Formats: sequence, structure tokens, C-alpha cells
Amino acid sequence: MPFPPEFHELAREVNNWGRWGPDDEIGTINLITPDVVRRGAACIETGTVFTLGLPLSDDGPQIGAIRGRINPLKTMIAINAPLTGDPTEFCTSDDIVVMGLQCATHWDSLAHVTYDGRLYNGHPVESITTDGASRCGIDKIRSIVGRGVLLDVARAKGVDRLEGGYAITGDDLDAACALGKLELVPGDVVLLRTGQIQLLHAGDKIGYTFPTSGPSTKTVRWFHDHDVAAVATDTLTYEVYPCERDDTQLPVHLLHLVEMGMTQGQNFDLEALAADCAADGRYAFFLDATPQPFDGGLGTPVNPVAIK
Amino acid sequence: MPFPPEFHELAREVNNWGRWGPDDEIGTINLITPDVVRRGAACIETGTVFTLGLPLSDDGPQIGAIRGRINPLKTMIAINAPLTGDPTEFCTSDDIVVMGLQCATHWDSLAHVTYDGRLYNGHPVESITTDGASRCGIDKIRSIVGRGVLLDVARAKGVDRLEGGYAITGDDLDAACALGKLELVPGDVVLLRTGQIQLLHAGDKIGYTFPTSGPSTKTVRWFHDHDVAAVATDTLTYEVYPCERDDTQLPVHLLHLVEMGMTQGQNFDLEALAADCAADGRYAFFLDATPQPFDGGLGTPVNPVAIK
Amino acid sequence: MPFPPEFHELAREVNNWGRWGPDDEIGTINLITPDVVRRGAACIETGTVFTLGLPLSDDGPQIGAIRGRINPLKTMIAINAPLTGDPTEFCTSDDIVVMGLQCATHWDSLAHVTYDGRLYNGHPVESITTDGASRCGIDKIRSIVGRGVLLDVARAKGVDRLEGGYAITGDDLDAACALGKLELVPGDVVLLRTGQIQLLHAGDKIGYTFPTSGPSTKTVRWFHDHDVAAVATDTLTYEVYPCERDDTQLPVHLLHLVEMGMTQGQNFDLEALAADCAADGRYAFFLDATPQPFDGGLGTPVNPVAIK
Amino acid sequence: MPFPPEFHELAREVNNWGRWGPDDEIGTINLITPDVVRRGAACIETGTVFTLGLPLSDDGPQIGAIRGRINPLKTMIAINAPLTGDPTEFCTSDDIVVMGLQCATHWDSLAHVTYDGRLYNGHPVESITTDGASRCGIDKIRSIVGRGVLLDVARAKGVDRLEGGYAITGDDLDAACALGKLELVPGDVVLLRTGQIQLLHAGDKIGYTFPTSGPSTKTVRWFHDHDVAAVATDTLTYEVYPCERDDTQLPVHLLHLVEMGMTQGQNFDLEALAADCAADGRYAFFLDATPQPFDGGLGTPVNPVAIK
Repeated sequence: MPFPPEFHELAREVNNWGRWGPDDEIGTINLITPDVVRRGAACIETGTVFTLGLPLSDDGPQIGAIRGRINPLKTMIAINAPLTGDPTEFCTSDDIVVMGLQCATHWDSLAHVTYDGRLYNGHPVESITTDGASRCGIDKIRSIVGRGVLLDVARAKGVDRLEGGYAITGDDLDAACALGKLELVPGDVVLLRTGQIQLLHAGDKIGYTFPTSGPSTKTVRWFHDHDVAAVATDTLTYEVYPCERDDTQLPVHLLHLVEMGMTQGQNFDLEALAADCAADGRYAFFLDATPQPFDGGLGTPVNPVAIK
Repeated sequence: MPFPPEFHELAREVNNWGRWGPDDEIGTINLITPDVVRRGAACIETGTVFTLGLPLSDDGPQIGAIRGRINPLKTMIAINAPLTGDPTEFCTSDDIVVMGLQCATHWDSLAHVTYDGRLYNGHPVESITTDGASRCGIDKIRSIVGRGVLLDVARAKGVDRLEGGYAITGDDLDAACALGKLELVPGDVVLLRTGQIQLLHAGDKIGYTFPTSGPSTKTVRWFHDHDVAAVATDTLTYEVYPCERDDTQLPVHLLHLVEMGMTQGQNFDLEALAADCAADGRYAFFLDATPQPFDGGLGTPVNPVAIK
Repeated sequence: MPFPPEFHELAREVNNWGRWGPDDEIGTINLITPDVVRRGAACIETGTVFTLGLPLSDDGPQIGAIRGRINPLKTMIAINAPLTGDPTEFCTSDDIVVMGLQCATHWDSLAHVTYDGRLYNGHPVESITTDGASRCGIDKIRSIVGRGVLLDVARAKGVDRLEGGYAITGDDLDAACALGKLELVPGDVVLLRTGQIQLLHAGDKIGYTFPTSGPSTKTVRWFHDHDVAAVATDTLTYEVYPCERDDTQLPVHLLHLVEMGMTQGQNFDLEALAADCAADGRYAFFLDATPQPFDGGLGTPVNPVAIK
Repeated sequence: MPFPPEFHELAREVNNWGRWGPDDEIGTINLITPDVVRRGAACIETGTVFTLGLPLSDDGPQIGAIRGRINPLKTMIAINAPLTGDPTEFCTSDDIVVMGLQCATHWDSLAHVTYDGRLYNGHPVESITTDGASRCGIDKIRSIVGRGVLLDVARAKGVDRLEGGYAITGDDLDAACALGKLELVPGDVVLLRTGQIQLLHAGDKIGYTFPTSGPSTKTVRWFHDHDVAAVATDTLTYEVYPCERDDTQLPVHLLHLVEMGMTQGQNFDLEALAADCAADGRYAFFLDATPQPFDGGLGTPVNPVAIK
């Protein structure tokens, strides 16, 4: 079924194809220049470190809603095994893991979604095979380091947690900037807080999955106009769900990843960082959220580090 | 077979048990204070970013020498699969991975090795089970962020690559400090370059594995005296191999991890960083090598980020 | 907490340790002699084949009740991949699987359970390590081929499905023999039907798991006295659950596997076979339920074949 | 590059498309009727059982020649873990496995290979997706039970092992029938012995892989004319390798699987069975080599049972 005209108009408006040349595979990550890295470093004052990754365990957020995307199952291949046979000498313990690359805190690669044969920058969709993504894979993004900004939409709206299904607007983002006294500059990485992850912490995995607040078709232009390098949320689905229109499933994924070429992240645990930002009023910080270099990866686990 | 007296004397001398309290599980990582983080941040001048992680692929360095520690096998659970059945709408590609947590660029947790019933800080060895390490697991280290220093022993000795089997000495480390005009301070993270990883880049996986240069019993006191927070090498085995004595297998693992409680890293690709350090003479930099938060992990993949 | 005296008395009574020598690792499977195989073959009349294995898919019976025992996740490593690059020539598709060895229709090895340091035949419990079971592993059972008999307890009691939590008795087994006009002989493999698997077929995975009917402490002597070679049920937990006594968890596992050394099977889909037995009155058949030869396996998937 | 005319002529000649109706997905397995099963059962005389599966362990035959097709890696999720916390009560050990479905002794499904858009019986090649094979998957073959015959080509030619690269001929098969005093009837399953697996037993995995003897374009008509149900060899590659012509890679796979719809097996360990056949002169036996019911599987591990 064809998408409505509004979708296509928005798609044309925010499209970045060709902006960084016909061979580009990383989109808005190009906005992260050495200047941006230095601007991030300049945010380090106290040396306080926050890590934003969920624990990697078989008790993770996946409940089977996305088929095959399993929580990490870590098992042991050696437990205190004596190398020489003598336990008074060298004994070793070792483990392996099976996991979905997007099972916990992660970035989606630009190749994660397509529609109507469209992959970012016009790369052929056939470039995604059983080997993974030979174009726009997560390995093409060497690093994500720079200035991070917290847009605490929940706090700006005076609630602990946005209501499930609420579609965030551009005005909401402006209000969050005002709360944080933030002026965005090209190359900033936005961490968008809805409070949804509180449901996960409370053990309600189903509630965490659905319904959820998140970015919507009303925020796409805003991220485009501010030349944001990447956006991550504290939700499982990234964008608002159920979707705004029945005839347009997951439009924000398509507009961000395919049209804008903007990398997006999910399941970022922003609670402790947000409390600190509220306390000291500083909503900008150094951020390192560099991918693990999975060859052809459609996504990557990440343990983002924010430093103030 | 009992270890020789020299081993036990050295063990006593560098032992850190109790230094950070009876419950401590992270050892020398305690030396990384907010001051250390700020000192690392102060090294950022140009904003140039180096990532030190090997590609994660089934063509990785493991050749079966360590049983069960498999290279990453990434496979697809969806390839451009239409969510609604209609390929003009949302299509998704998704992947899972099976891998040894220590298969490529990684940190060993303090629980990775024991001997004679000794686990760092006197924690019971029985705390390592099929669930992993409930004591001293990699999840206990929240972050590894601070000042990194490159000790380029190969260059300081005037060679491209140290000869396989060469046991690095304390004098070698002093010479590398002199080359880099470095004065180490407590909490520094040392990246130790042997050049061994050139063999891997050349496709010689067996040669990369064995024989190899590396830290030895002659460098243990040096790291202890300089209050280093962590050490990583550009080798598979971390320490010199074959070992210096037939009757003492892998003594550096035991002295660093068990006695000192010093986290160690392997397969760090230091070639590009080292070339840059040689070019600009700056051997200190900001380093973020934060673990992935694997619950009870005996180790963790890491994609270290160095910024100059 | 010590088990009650009744348990220990029953344990002594049915104990088979030493019966097949001090080194034996397969227990009652020893009862399957070439004569038994021929007796099984003599049951083949029409040549009708029944397979009793559940489909192996990620929609299997495991719901997380047994931590880490995951349903099969099969993924593709190649999809119509051209060997030479030319799709008009040889193209190949290939897959890998991650699964619990006991996730679907399976046999437990004798090493699957122990208690109080007791492993079948007095083998040391330390023989079970990260490599699996070096004693009593499933690889020690070369084949399970012979005469199978269906004890349709549900039908004998005039119900479609035994009530959840019902503890089957020796009299129930006698009644099922009478229904099937069966006289058991040493070495027979018993397939015990409760009807519980109907819940799985109806999509009720939780109901299938718990509560469930099954063998109980009231059937242990019966199986021992009849010199049965192995017993399998159409349930997830094998034995009645919740257990008969709060102070004795899963006693049938302990008595069958540890004391008797009798191999046991679970999730055998007996519905079609049972319908056929009811129709033709023949409750004995040839059975091949040979394990997959997993080195050190604690269990094995099996697709049992019954032929009438 | 187009195949030579000889290939296409042979393809037309042995083609079975439509023979069992337009919807058929199992090809020559249709030849296994209840009569065939009874004929197999009639071969059981002594009750001696042979299992033909290689051990499933990480020391299996795969050496990386087929990318991603990994040897079984079995790891433990529980080792003598007390259910209630009290080790005097119920303790359990449990394992999971990661493996290629075709890594050891296995059947290929008919969907395993295609060429030029051709899948057996004209099913669309697009039916093979990340979910596996929705057409012609191994789950469509309910059982493989009947009469097995050993064609011991090596012995018939008076050698222990056929030379690597030797292309077996129709005359060789006739000679092996003569040696075994065999008259093939439709529905027979052929086990073809080259002796190649002796190299694997001797530890020479590379030699086992390549070069190898096997069926060739000179045996395709023979199997077709004798209405064989399935063929398995004691080799890794199934067919002769290197191939007979440089311009026709792996033609036997294409002719057997795609054109004839004949299921093929690899890595069957025939050494003990062959010795017994040579000793008693009986080269026909009951065979059960039923697949594991992997949903959409491109292949299946199998532990074949031969009974004499």
C-alpha cells in the first residue's frame, strides 16, 4: 500500500542523499569533525563518568516481540580449568555469548531498514546479504565521539515519564532545550529522554515494549534542521508506538535512517545522567558511544560513556 | 608442582589484596579517579580519534589454540524482511552473533585466572560458576576512562617488531618512557607496543599466536611501582610466550590479575596510533576503553578510543 | 534438608549400582540385547512409520522456566550464494543452530542430575565439567533400538488427558498394559502417555509446563521390577509436578537416573501413535530412538521412529 | 558462464520434476513406501546395530573450508547446580550447542543448492529466506527408513581407499553390487564407501577435505535408472573433488538435488559396517536415518542406524 503524500513530502524535504558524495555510507555522522570532538572534550569539568548501557544478561529487555533478537546468553567454556592439570598452577575461566546485536543498548546501522527498494544514499538493497551489510554497515562508522546533549522531554513537560503512545513534537524538543539552556550546533548527539525505561527497571518488560512515547513525524524536520549527528532514546522501539497512522508503519525509522542517513540508538539508560543534569543544570557533556566493529553489522551493542 | 620461590617472593611484593578494602573487586581500576579522567581530557588537542579494536568477523585471530574461544560468527535473522508483507513499506534486517568474549580486542576480568585456589583479594574461587563470575566479573568495572600512554618498546629498541619470545624488561619500559618523554602518574593506562600484530595483518595467524614478545616477570614490579591502572598489548597471549621458565606457566597473568588485581588487555591494534605518536612526539592521550557490561563476564570485547 | 526415610528406602530398593560392573555408564540400556532388537523388528507388520519428535523451531516449548535452555534458533549463513559469483552456476544455502540439547523432544543422559554427591554407579560428580559429562554422557549410549510399548494411561483411565498434578501409580501402569494387551519383557522401552502435550498443540505453553501429570514415587518400583530399559513421556517435566511432597523435589529424576541408571525422555509427541494403537489394538512396535552422538552431552535431541 | 551441453543433456535425462505432482517437495524419498520399510525390516537377522554418525564435538571435520559451517560447540548452562540451593537435594547439569546443521554426519535437504534460478520441482528460489527453506526443507521429509545397501567401491576395486580425485563410474557401482551380491530395487538407500574417512580418523582433516573421490557425472544416470531413494558417502564434499571439469563446479549436487530431487548425505562413517559386511557377505540391512525435524532446515545432523 502506498504511503500518504505527507510522508513523501517530508521524505523529500529531509533527504540527505548525495550531500556527502555518492559513495557515502555514514550520513550525518560526517558532521562529527575534530572540532566537534574538541567541543565535547571542553564539556569535561568534574571528571564524573556515566555509563548508559543496560546490563548484558539473559534477563534483558527482549521478550520475543522481535523474532530471533535474543537476549545475551553467556555460557562458560572453562571454569577454573587447570592448564597443566595441576590446580595449584594456572587455571582459567572463559566464556562465549550468543546475542542479538540490537538486543540491549545499541545503535542501528543505516542498513537496518529500507523501504520500496530504498537504502540510504541509493545503495542497492541487494548489498544486504547473509554476510550482513556490505554497504552502510555499522563497521563503516569508525567512532561516535563528541558533544552529547540530553533533551529531557519528560522533565520539560513536568512528568516522570511520558505517556505510552505520546508522539513528541518539535515544540517539546525546543522546551527541552530551554530547560537545559542548550543551543544545538551541527554534529551534536542527542539523547532523548522519555522516562519509558523506568518500566523496564520496574520489571514490566511488556509495558516497556508497548505502548511507548518517542520521536514522531513531528520531530523529523527538527533533527534535520539542527544538523544533529545521531539520536538515541531510552525506549525499545525508538519511535512512538503505536504509530501515528495505521497506514504508515514506523515512519521515523524510514525517514531518519533511509532519507536522512541519521544513525539512531535505543535502550539508552538515561535515568542517572538525567538526575545529575537536573541537579547541576548542565545538559551538555562529552560522549563516547563508538560502535563495536562488527563486520557488516546491522547494529551494534554499545556502552555509551558520558563525562561531565 | 610448586612454583619456584622467586615467583612467590614476587607475588608477595606486588600483592594488592586488602589495599582497597576486603570487598574490592576491581583492583587497580580504583586508581582511576575523576582527577585522572580530567588529566586524560586535558590531552585532547587536535580532536583526532583512533580506534584500536580489531574488526569483529569470522576471520578473526582465533585459530583454535584456545579451545572454544571462537571468532565472531555473525548471522542474519532477517534480510530486508517486509514487516507488513509489502516490500514498499518498512523492511528490516537484523543479526545475531556467537563469539568468545575474549576472541578479539578485549579486557580480561580479574576473575579470568586463578591458581592454587587464589582469586584476587581472597574472593572464593567457587564464585566462578556456569553463570560466570559473581565476584570480580567485568561488570564490576563501570568504566575505564582516563589518560592512556603508549609505551612503544619496539620503536625504543629501534625495531619494527620485537622478536617472538623476547621477555620485555623494566629497562625497556624506561626506554619507551624516555622515547615518549613520558612521566607516568598513578592511574595511567599503559598500551604496550611490541609490533607483534603486524603478523596478524600480514595474514600469519599462527605466527601471531606463537612465539610472541610481551610483559614478563621482569616488568611486574615496574607496573606495580608506577601504580598503573591497566595494561594492554598488541599480542594474543598478552605475556611473553613461550614462558621464561618451564616450571612457571603464564606467571604474568597470575601476578597481574590475581596478586595485583590489575586488569589486562589483548589484541589492541596500536599500529596507526604508534605511527601518529612517532610523528608528533605526543605519546599521551585521552583513552576510553570501557567494558561492555556483560553480567558475570570473564572478559569483554572492547573497541578502545584514543583521542589526541 | 535431608530427604524423608521413605525416599532413601525406595532408593536402596531400586538401586542398580554395580549390577553391570563398576565401570558401567549406561545403566538399564544394558538390557537392550540383540534379542531385544530382533523382538522389536518382529513387531513390524504394515511398515507404517510414526515420528515422535516435536518440530525444532524458535516456537518450541521452552518459555524460560529452565534458565538458558533455549528453543532452537536457526539462522542462515548463506542464502542462494553463488560459489563462483555467477548465479547461473552452483548456489548454496546453509544454516547454523543454537539450541538447548534438552529443549524439545530429548533424552536426558544419566549425568543430567545428581544429589548429595551421588552420580549413577558411584562415578565422581566432578566428572561433570565445562566440557560436559566425561562419565555417563549421552555419547556413551551407542543406540536405543528395540521394542517400544505404549502405556496409554490417559486412555486406560477413560480421559483425553490426565489432570495436571496427577501422580501416576503402578496400578495405572497395569491398567495401561491390560488395555494394550501387553506383557512387558526386560529391555522394553516404555512410552508413557498422559495427553499433556495436547496443551502444547493448543498453544498453551504455560499450561503444558505446569501443572503436569507424570510418573511418581508410586511407579518407580514398577519400572524397576519390569526391567524397563528406558521411559519417555509426553510432558515437559517428565515426572508429576508439583511434586508429591514439598520436602522432596523431583524425586523421580533422582531415583530413575541416579539410583536405577534408567535413561528418561521428554516431550515425546505420542498423539498420532496413540490414535493408531487404539484403532488397531497393537501397542507394541519397533522403536529407534538413538541419541545424536554429542560428546559429553547431558542430553540429546531425538526424533524417535516407531514402526508398526 | 553457461554449463556445457553435456551437462544440460544429462540434466534433462534424469529430471524428475512433476513425477510426484507439482507440489512435491521430497523427490525420490517418495520411493520409500511401507513395502520398502518391510523389506528393510526383513534384513534384520542377528540384531547387530551399527551407528554411522561421527562424534559431535568441536574437534569435528570442519576446518573453515565452508565459511560459517562451524563444528559443534557445546557449552554448559548449569553444572551440578542445586535447585533449592542445597547440594544434598536435586542438582542439575544442562548444555546448549551451536553448530552448523551440515557440520558432521548429515543429510542435505533438496533446497541446499540451486542454479540458474532452478530449485527442485520448479519451486521458487525466493522460498529460501532468513527463515530457511519454506519449500523442500528437511522438515518435509518425515522419515528415512527402509533397506540400506553398502556399495563398497573401494573394496570392489581391491584398495583400502580410493585415490583422492577419482571419479567413480557406473561400472564401479556395478562391481560393488556384484561384490555384495546385491540387486537394487526402487527405494533402496545407497551408502557409498570410498574409504576417504580413514584420513579423518588418522587426524588428517585437510586431506579428508581435499582431494576426494566420490560420485561423478558418470554415476548420475546409474542412480536414476535404479530409482535409488537417497545416497550417502563417507566423504566431506559428497562428490568427486576437484571436479571433473573446470567449467562445471559441483555438477553432481545440481543433478542429484535439483534435477532428480534425490536427497544426499555426507560424512557417514562406514568403516565398521563395511568390515562386518565383508566378514558375513551381507551388504543389505535395515536403515533408519530419519532427519531431525528442523523447521525449514537446509540440512540435518543424523546418526544413522544400520541393523543386520
